[in-house]
Amino acid sequence: MKMGVLGSGMVAQAISARLAELGHDIVIGTDDIEKLKGWQSSNQRVRIGSFAETAAHGEIVFNATDGAASLQALAMAGPENLTGKILVDVSNPLDFSNGFPPSLFVCGTDSLAEQIQRALPYTKVVKTLNTVTARIMVYPQEVAGGDHHIFISANDADAKAQVTDLLRAFGWLNIFDLGDLSTARGTEAYMLLWVRLFGAMNTGMINVKIMK
Amino acid sequence: MKMGVLGSGMVAQAISARLAELGHDIVIGTDDIEKLKGWQSSNQRVRIGSFAETAAHGEIVFNATDGAASLQALAMAGPENLTGKILVDVSNPLDFSNGFPPSLFVCGTDSLAEQIQRALPYTKVVKTLNTVTARIMVYPQEVAGGDHHIFISANDADAKAQVTDLLRAFGWLNIFDLGDLSTARGTEAYMLLWVRLFGAMNTGMINVKIMK
Repeated sequence: MKMGVLGSGMVAQAISARLAELGHDIVIGTDDIEKLKGWQSSNQRVRIGSFAETAAHGEIVFNATDGAASLQALAMAGPENLTGKILVDVSNPLDFSNGFPPSLFVCGTDSLAEQIQRALPYTKVVKTLNTVTARIMVYPQEVAGGDHHIFISANDADAKAQVTDLLRAFGWLNIFDLGDLSTARGTEAYMLLWVRLFGAMNTGMINVKIMK
Repeated sequence: MKMGVLGSGMVAQAISARLAELGHDIVIGTDDIEKLKGWQSSNQRVRIGSFAETAAHGEIVFNATDGAASLQALAMAGPENLTGKILVDVSNPLDFSNGFPPSLFVCGTDSLAEQIQRALPYTKVVKTLNTVTARIMVYPQEVAGGDHHIFISANDADAKAQVTDLLRAFGWLNIFDLGDLSTARGTEAYMLLWVRLFGAMNTGMINVKIMK
């Protein structure tokens, strides 16, 4: 399938490479093509495009931009290029203005996912993967053999089902349907615990398993 | 040991009853004694006191009051009655002003635990147990046989060790030392995910296990 990945950082690179490995036709989108030239030399199945070219290319598009820049990046991508499509939002509203650990620039009463949905009313926003580090997003079996959970939040049931299939293709065994897009308030806020787990364990190769 | 439990709700009742069951000498503190009379008739080992009497009684004191009222309750308890003591803070900064699910009245850049520590500079505040429902706090084996984690945050190493012993007495097998009291920002924010897990699973008898 034709997919676009907006972003140029570790998360965008990991998702792009994995989707290409799974046989998809991938464009990775950036506002600074030079940044990705080195990475692309060892990932030649992935093409580089502008934000708008990437959004236009994808039948499904990932938002893997820095959360603080996501709304601006999506405006540059062009809402018209995302109309009727699924946008998989993996970003987090992290505020690093006071260094590490970050706080959140939106917390509890709203979420970045909902802000994006309001900015793109004709796009089906699906929030997922934002609770784990880039490597685990696409190779979940590398933590505890995959015995842990990823969350998914979306308003559109069909979009949620399609993204669930993609997650299974990545290797996810336990996909937890939290509900509508407002439940992204929960997974985004969880990052404040995640950064403390990271601090205590000195590794990002961690995740949670829901026990009952 | 003499302990005090500030609060009159489900959490305060569960902790008080469990501590009494473990042989401790417990006073439960409330600003409305009538509220606890019915409960106490089947929990006669626990005495009822004012906030101040409860704080004065305990060598270790629990804050199990409603988070939105905690600072006021602790002011009524009297900082002088808590000087040099351990305060186990199990509260959460939940804001129900817009109904359920709640948001948080402090998020990311501060925590209720730190607010309490600043209000009680001569007390050793230890944050724990706030990430699970009352029943699991004191009978952790009732979820997945105890195969899940509780977090602990504190600035004072000795206080943290003493509370860790108490958690083991409750039955906790996996106690995750997150670090200093500022790490309570993480566990308090996790409540925004917890309420969504609760919503999706229709039970509070859940918890997370950290996988690596």
